[in-house]
Amino acid sequence: MSKRVAAFGEVMMRLQVPGYDTLAQADALRYTFSGTGVNIVSALARFGHTGYLVTTLPDNPLGEAAMAYLRKLDVSTSLIQRGGKFVGMYFLENGFGMRPSRVTYTDRLGSSFNQAPEDSYDPADIAGNVDIMHFCGISLAMNDTVRGHMKRLAAAVKQAGGKVVFDCNYRPSLWGDGGYALAKPHYEEMLGLADVVMMNEKDALHILGMETQATDRKEQLLDLIPQVAGKFGISVAAGTHRSINRDNSHSLQGYIYKDGQFEFSDTLSFMVYDRIGAGDAYASGIIHGEIQNFSAKNTVDFAAAAAALAHTVSGDTPNASEAEVLKAMTQMMPDVER
Amino acid sequence: MSKRVAAFGEVMMRLQVPGYDTLAQADALRYTFSGTGVNIVSALARFGHTGYLVTTLPDNPLGEAAMAYLRKLDVSTSLIQRGGKFVGMYFLENGFGMRPSRVTYTDRLGSSFNQAPEDSYDPADIAGNVDIMHFCGISLAMNDTVRGHMKRLAAAVKQAGGKVVFDCNYRPSLWGDGGYALAKPHYEEMLGLADVVMMNEKDALHILGMETQATDRKEQLLDLIPQVAGKFGISVAAGTHRSINRDNSHSLQGYIYKDGQFEFSDTLSFMVYDRIGAGDAYASGIIHGEIQNFSAKNTVDFAAAAAALAHTVSGDTPNASEAEVLKAMTQMMPDVER
Amino acid sequence: MSKRVAAFGEVMMRLQVPGYDTLAQADALRYTFSGTGVNIVSALARFGHTGYLVTTLPDNPLGEAAMAYLRKLDVSTSLIQRGGKFVGMYFLENGFGMRPSRVTYTDRLGSSFNQAPEDSYDPADIAGNVDIMHFCGISLAMNDTVRGHMKRLAAAVKQAGGKVVFDCNYRPSLWGDGGYALAKPHYEEMLGLADVVMMNEKDALHILGMETQATDRKEQLLDLIPQVAGKFGISVAAGTHRSINRDNSHSLQGYIYKDGQFEFSDTLSFMVYDRIGAGDAYASGIIHGEIQNFSAKNTVDFAAAAAALAHTVSGDTPNASEAEVLKAMTQMMPDVER
Amino acid sequence: MSKRVAAFGEVMMRLQVPGYDTLAQADALRYTFSGTGVNIVSALARFGHTGYLVTTLPDNPLGEAAMAYLRKLDVSTSLIQRGGKFVGMYFLENGFGMRPSRVTYTDRLGSSFNQAPEDSYDPADIAGNVDIMHFCGISLAMNDTVRGHMKRLAAAVKQAGGKVVFDCNYRPSLWGDGGYALAKPHYEEMLGLADVVMMNEKDALHILGMETQATDRKEQLLDLIPQVAGKFGISVAAGTHRSINRDNSHSLQGYIYKDGQFEFSDTLSFMVYDRIGAGDAYASGIIHGEIQNFSAKNTVDFAAAAAALAHTVSGDTPNASEAEVLKAMTQMMPDVER
Amino acid sequence: MSKRVAAFGEVMMRLQVPGYDTLAQADALRYTFSGTGVNIVSALARFGHTGYLVTTLPDNPLGEAAMAYLRKLDVSTSLIQRGGKFVGMYFLENGFGMRPSRVTYTDRLGSSFNQAPEDSYDPADIAGNVDIMHFCGISLAMNDTVRGHMKRLAAAVKQAGGKVVFDCNYRPSLWGDGGYALAKPHYEEMLGLADVVMMNEKDALHILGMETQATDRKEQLLDLIPQVAGKFGISVAAGTHRSINRDNSHSLQGYIYKDGQFEFSDTLSFMVYDRIGAGDAYASGIIHGEIQNFSAKNTVDFAAAAAALAHTVSGDTPNASEAEVLKAMTQMMPDVER
Amino acid sequence: MSKRVAAFGEVMMRLQVPGYDTLAQADALRYTFSGTGVNIVSALARFGHTGYLVTTLPDNPLGEAAMAYLRKLDVSTSLIQRGGKFVGMYFLENGFGMRPSRVTYTDRLGSSFNQAPEDSYDPADIAGNVDIMHFCGISLAMNDTVRGHMKRLAAAVKQAGGKVVFDCNYRPSLWGDGGYALAKPHYEEMLGLADVVMMNEKDALHILGMETQATDRKEQLLDLIPQVAGKFGISVAAGTHRSINRDNSHSLQGYIYKDGQFEFSDTLSFMVYDRIGAGDAYASGIIHGEIQNFSAKNTVDFAAAAAALAHTVSGDTPNASEAEVLKAMTQMMPDVER
Repeated sequence: MSKRVAAFGEVMMRLQVPGYDTLAQADALRYTFSGTGVNIVSALARFGHTGYLVTTLPDNPLGEAAMAYLRKLDVSTSLIQRGGKFVGMYFLENGFGMRPSRVTYTDRLGSSFNQAPEDSYDPADIAGNVDIMHFCGISLAMNDTVRGHMKRLAAAVKQAGGKVVFDCNYRPSLWGDGGYALAKPHYEEMLGLADVVMMNEKDALHILGMETQATDRKEQLLDLIPQVAGKFGISVAAGTHRSINRDNSHSLQGYIYKDGQFEFSDTLSFMVYDRIGAGDAYASGIIHGEIQNFSAKNTVDFAAAAAALAHTVSGDTPNASEAEVLKAMTQMMPDVER
Repeated sequence: MSKRVAAFGEVMMRLQVPGYDTLAQADALRYTFSGTGVNIVSALARFGHTGYLVTTLPDNPLGEAAMAYLRKLDVSTSLIQRGGKFVGMYFLENGFGMRPSRVTYTDRLGSSFNQAPEDSYDPADIAGNVDIMHFCGISLAMNDTVRGHMKRLAAAVKQAGGKVVFDCNYRPSLWGDGGYALAKPHYEEMLGLADVVMMNEKDALHILGMETQATDRKEQLLDLIPQVAGKFGISVAAGTHRSINRDNSHSLQGYIYKDGQFEFSDTLSFMVYDRIGAGDAYASGIIHGEIQNFSAKNTVDFAAAAAALAHTVSGDTPNASEAEVLKAMTQMMPDVER
Repeated sequence: MSKRVAAFGEVMMRLQVPGYDTLAQADALRYTFSGTGVNIVSALARFGHTGYLVTTLPDNPLGEAAMAYLRKLDVSTSLIQRGGKFVGMYFLENGFGMRPSRVTYTDRLGSSFNQAPEDSYDPADIAGNVDIMHFCGISLAMNDTVRGHMKRLAAAVKQAGGKVVFDCNYRPSLWGDGGYALAKPHYEEMLGLADVVMMNEKDALHILGMETQATDRKEQLLDLIPQVAGKFGISVAAGTHRSINRDNSHSLQGYIYKDGQFEFSDTLSFMVYDRIGAGDAYASGIIHGEIQNFSAKNTVDFAAAAAALAHTVSGDTPNASEAEVLKAMTQMMPDVER
Repeated sequence: MSKRVAAFGEVMMRLQVPGYDTLAQADALRYTFSGTGVNIVSALARFGHTGYLVTTLPDNPLGEAAMAYLRKLDVSTSLIQRGGKFVGMYFLENGFGMRPSRVTYTDRLGSSFNQAPEDSYDPADIAGNVDIMHFCGISLAMNDTVRGHMKRLAAAVKQAGGKVVFDCNYRPSLWGDGGYALAKPHYEEMLGLADVVMMNEKDALHILGMETQATDRKEQLLDLIPQVAGKFGISVAAGTHRSINRDNSHSLQGYIYKDGQFEFSDTLSFMVYDRIGAGDAYASGIIHGEIQNFSAKNTVDFAAAAAALAHTVSGDTPNASEAEVLKAMTQMMPDVER
Repeated sequence: MSKRVAAFGEVMMRLQVPGYDTLAQADALRYTFSGTGVNIVSALARFGHTGYLVTTLPDNPLGEAAMAYLRKLDVSTSLIQRGGKFVGMYFLENGFGMRPSRVTYTDRLGSSFNQAPEDSYDPADIAGNVDIMHFCGISLAMNDTVRGHMKRLAAAVKQAGGKVVFDCNYRPSLWGDGGYALAKPHYEEMLGLADVVMMNEKDALHILGMETQATDRKEQLLDLIPQVAGKFGISVAAGTHRSINRDNSHSLQGYIYKDGQFEFSDTLSFMVYDRIGAGDAYASGIIHGEIQNFSAKNTVDFAAAAAALAHTVSGDTPNASEAEVLKAMTQMMPDVER
Repeated sequence: MSKRVAAFGEVMMRLQVPGYDTLAQADALRYTFSGTGVNIVSALARFGHTGYLVTTLPDNPLGEAAMAYLRKLDVSTSLIQRGGKFVGMYFLENGFGMRPSRVTYTDRLGSSFNQAPEDSYDPADIAGNVDIMHFCGISLAMNDTVRGHMKRLAAAVKQAGGKVVFDCNYRPSLWGDGGYALAKPHYEEMLGLADVVMMNEKDALHILGMETQATDRKEQLLDLIPQVAGKFGISVAAGTHRSINRDNSHSLQGYIYKDGQFEFSDTLSFMVYDRIGAGDAYASGIIHGEIQNFSAKNTVDFAAAAAALAHTVSGDTPNASEAEVLKAMTQMMPDVER
């Protein structure tokens, strides 16, 4: 079953130093375009759905480059507005071993996406063209106009009978001095509109200010997520716990909470080539499982395998097909396919 | 004779698509750091002077990269402030033949340079450390705070017995709706403080609103420049006339007006590899000639040769030594030096 | 006015040695995907139309790469079949000056496109979805099955009220020993179905075996094209005469014959970066002019400017927008746009 | 002791995406030329022998590039025929961690090697010029003409007093629907001509259809190989068992069966940079040990070390010298040699 | 507290094959400029001191490139002489896993540094401008003129009240047939002038010919270093013990001996990107700790962390800031900093 | 008719900055191996002869790389000695337009070739294996040992009935203070041994100190060359006159003097990609013409076309086949060959 899935979010230009040099050592960059929304709908397009991005890009050579890149990713650009002047950017210097990677942002608040006027998007029209729409906490941190877009679009989708997905994705640096207190009412509003929510116990504790007696992460999760789901009328909640092992491999376990039940994936361990965007791969896996009516256990296993595979791919954007994720789930990948 | 020469201006990150692809076709960029001030003091360092840049750069990986790049160019960084958050940037796509090059800016008004607070620079201290200081019309277009820095610094240098160089460098796109009317008083103030001015007849006509009966460019120049010099008490005015030939070669003739006399260089024709920054090479040649007490004719010939050579070098920043410029002036460059 | 334009043709993988080395000297290649049909509909998409490619690509990593590349070019892939095993390829070594470029083909007859079975495409369905469909003589040279696809598709489009464009594009090496004799009946059949034909006097003389007293190329053209148009009921015929100048620049003049009248463009001269695909840019310009109801003179000027610009772009595929072509027509391109 | 060693086999062009991108993500390829025969004689040339390749390459720029590359590898090209039109090719996308590498072939059946006519090679002449000749199961899978070349050449070498080496190298995808049944008689014929055979228990079980009570791989080997050697009159049989460890390192143990005795190398574990061609390094080590009259134990240790080293080298083709292999056998490799 | 630190030593051009190819496989190189002295003063500049290099470079394009690179590293070039004709060079081929890296030198004895005449440097002038000066055993191996420079400079610094640092850094290949016997008197002379010495027990045993009953490396160290310090009047001795683990990670423990006491760092284990220059990072850490009056334990921990970080950076030259080393010491590096 | 042609000369490593950056701006190099002897025998191998290089290379990774590169060029390495420690090198920075290219040498006098002991080569053995042997004035400038090799080898070839070719190739920078006076006797000795000589009127005037009344270059040539040929018993003298045109194209005219007659080629004008090595292409053309018994006019035309083509090829070494040179002679090269 193929669905029409839209995502609302900014397109960021990622400028990455090749190899392991710093910006001060190097003189060349590779660039791609990404963002949570891009990653989500591109991944779902690879799973057979039609993925639309709802965003605003400038009508200049950088905007053209972003549009071409999105089309290459099989993202439908028919709902993208053109206007404003700038594209948000970040520079990425790869770390190595004990030396951490570094991300440096340009001034994203002036971007076309963040400066798009209130009437940029037609909520009713968009809602009429999509079955599912995805929003995330990064956009929610931008400014009041962006928050207004989000709430009107989510409400319109809900009203038109579509499903709303919300990924909490709280980034402390984006909320500035306001912090959790500033964020809380906006998160509550989005949670109230959402059918599927990507979150874990930390979001409940810190953003929503909930409390629990439990001290272990997993127990906190088991305690808090059902409360959140109940309070906000959420059908499906899902998320991951991750850790980095001594040998630089990563481990990840996914959970899903649905119909009052938790299901957990196996804890997967894997070598990491590029970790950015793996959370979006997980969310895409959950959405795909829901669309396909996989069992909850199958959905969480599929999403965890999709997330693991996303760590092996360059760039932010997952590019595994459904067949490749299913194959990864069987754990019997051959060494060379020929 | 080696002098201490400072320039005030923004450091821009130049992100260039290699070869002749557009941003939409390519996936890699080369980056350097430049700006009028950078170009001027780097060129003068190659001529044997000590070149200081007065600017503000962020204390982050992009700022580090800019600092390292400036040191590589032999620009002294001891007068550079660190603060703010962003570096101004522009993307460059090379044209080919009849297809023009394209430049796309990011939001430079939010840069560390343009956001540096009023008391960022200590005019008296800077004036005490330099013999000559260079300013340009690009900085003058930024905002009132930057204009304030410029005027205070120029006044301090003048008061301390140093020389002030001002390059009119009017860029219509930077002055927005205000245009010439907005620019005029600020230009007049800077011209009043300047000893050496880079300009031509168009600046007199459009910025200063002067009039002439002459219709030919050269005649306009001969008519207007002495009036400007007289009105603002300018010792030396200099500039170029350029044209592009049918075979893609460029031609350039420099002029200097000093002690009531005009001198012109030969009209030089040359193949062009990278034209950005050639005007700054010309200005550097004029400054160097003045420092060395070259005759006016020698100065304008040296400056014209420096400008021509700058078209043959990648990047914005001229890198010919005095010996290489002198050799180019003799017009007898060997094919391969070995 | 935006139209739906389809093209039928093979997608070729172009593997190009960077710079001017030969395959024996180098160790790296750049690759893109192109073909006459790709070039036509991609160019028309840049002019604001919806461009569909009708072709067959394998369901393997090379096919995926081709699909992604086509989407990037804004070619709609919804009419592309997946099947077969191979992608046609050619290797390109750039010449320099008196040393010619070299093209080496792999075995394209085994490609998915050339092996696609007779019932691969649904002519009625395709005809119902497009306003204009483009075919070319390269495809016509492949094999009987491909020729069958072409004739059925062209007939269906015609029957559905759409327009058929046919580019003669005769390549001697593709017709082997059969040569013109083998080609003639197939060309006649396609000409009989076509509304718009890209050709010149050589096609009339050699393929169709027509005769003329004239010896000058232009006089031959003036004599023969009206006869061809009359015989096959062609509304519009168009083409170019090209020559290479001593300084390596190229010159090109376009013609159009419509409503019994010839119109010629100015003879344009320009520097060449990559000449492959420039003929397709010309054809796209003619089609766009026809769609927009430009005057015949405007159409031929637009097409000639589009062809000239295509020589300045890397890769086979033209990428100028309508605005860029119009700007080139005014002949007043600035040196650097900023 | 230096011998003249020939190998019969196809030269393949390997087109590899640099780094870890897929063909759909990347736009550049690196190319080399390889093949089992190439690898074998190039490795033996590095060990001090004269290595000839017997194959057919087209007389076009791709053939030239292949010839130049073979000479660079120190492969003698004096027995190579020029003719036909195509070079076999494969595209390689590197996997990372749990994401497998992918190989995509072009249509190799149309290659010059596979289309070379029956009388392309002069068996008596070739046999007169070589001491040892190597054949492999990949060539045996191609078509009847190629199989005819192999059998005639092997018979001629045997008759002229040279030694025949045969590497079973069964690739299921190459035998198509015919599978083991199609392959069996051809393998039996080649085994009957061979003095030295590269194989393991799986070849005996599946290709030759032999049976054993043993279930453990090593026991199967100990049971079956002596039977095969006896039945076909083979002097030396050798091969490896490999496994991939959890930390992505590989382990490999070699065996040799000679004069009724088995010898095994230590199980070597090592990090892997490029695993393609490591089996050919092992075969080369066995052949070199036999030429040099190493003890069987020394031969198998040398071959195993050569195979391990081949995993650390880019490209298919082993390039360790005898001294480097001997040094690796001592297990005391310094960190940096200076 | 910021000090003026000079180092005496040669600038080497490092020409490295990218990736893991050999010189025979590749066709491109990356180059940087380094050397023990370069590494020391560049690292100290990153820690906030002023770093001067005392060396000689030719006045040609290679010398210019070296000068620019040193400035980029924030090395002050005001004490560098220009003269002679050549720059010392070495080629580096990266090993992989069990395949070792290879270093190939050009003829460094003819370099500008090694041919600089006796009166090249003005010891008194240099001593008057620096607080600390670093020398190393590599320079000591060059020739008598270089040894003369070292001894005169060290004596002058000592006399002017500055501190002398000497790194034993014995390289057998540089001393040729003379070996330890040739080296000993020169080492003894430098040790007699030094305040801070980088060495370990092997230097005492082999260069100085001392003896100990202990057989364990650490016990030898505890026995011999106090004797060396006593004999030569050394205030601070420091060094490292390193080992390579089975999983290719490295382990390193630093020691410092000061005021009759030993302090040891933790044994740090870490993944290695580029190991060349890590010993210089350690020495820089010791010098910085001494300047800042860190406790001996803090100094050795800081130096060990600096050394570990240096293994994660491309090129020979450490580039961690003090803040980055302090952060590494806390062992709590985040995965991605954003 | 295929001949065995040897050349005696040094193999130089050419390290070239890609594009048009200087060494101070760039951080990467491309490398190849060349030299007059390499160029000559490689070009003749492309014309169908067997080309041997007589030289000495070190037995280290640089020597291996040179050997592999020579084999790739189809140079037979069987007469190459291995020994010594260093390879001669030069760095090349490309100029652009009025900015000249720059060549910087490393210390080539210490190279394996220049340090090879007197008995390195076996003149009688080499003379027995070759039909023609080429020497050049660059080697003659090195040192007495190299001059000794040259004279013994040339004498042995002559005695064995082979032909000696000598290219005057006088490079002022290599003869140092000695200049023409130092060179003259050695040149006279080589001219006395030579059958074919590459030279022009300047060599006669400056090296041999001859005099003429003529002032025009061509008249000087017509006057002096017959005298030289007579005096030294030279069968064939040949050379070129070159000039650089205002549009950066080059013009070249070849001459040959044989049997008392001069023949001149047409003056060819062409665009230049890489001019180094074009003189060697001319010499190769002369040698090939002589081997094939072309008429003198045909030989000089072939050589001139070969030289012109060599300007269009990257690297020092010509790579045109005989067919490609013949095609270039017809002046009708197509634009793209497909």
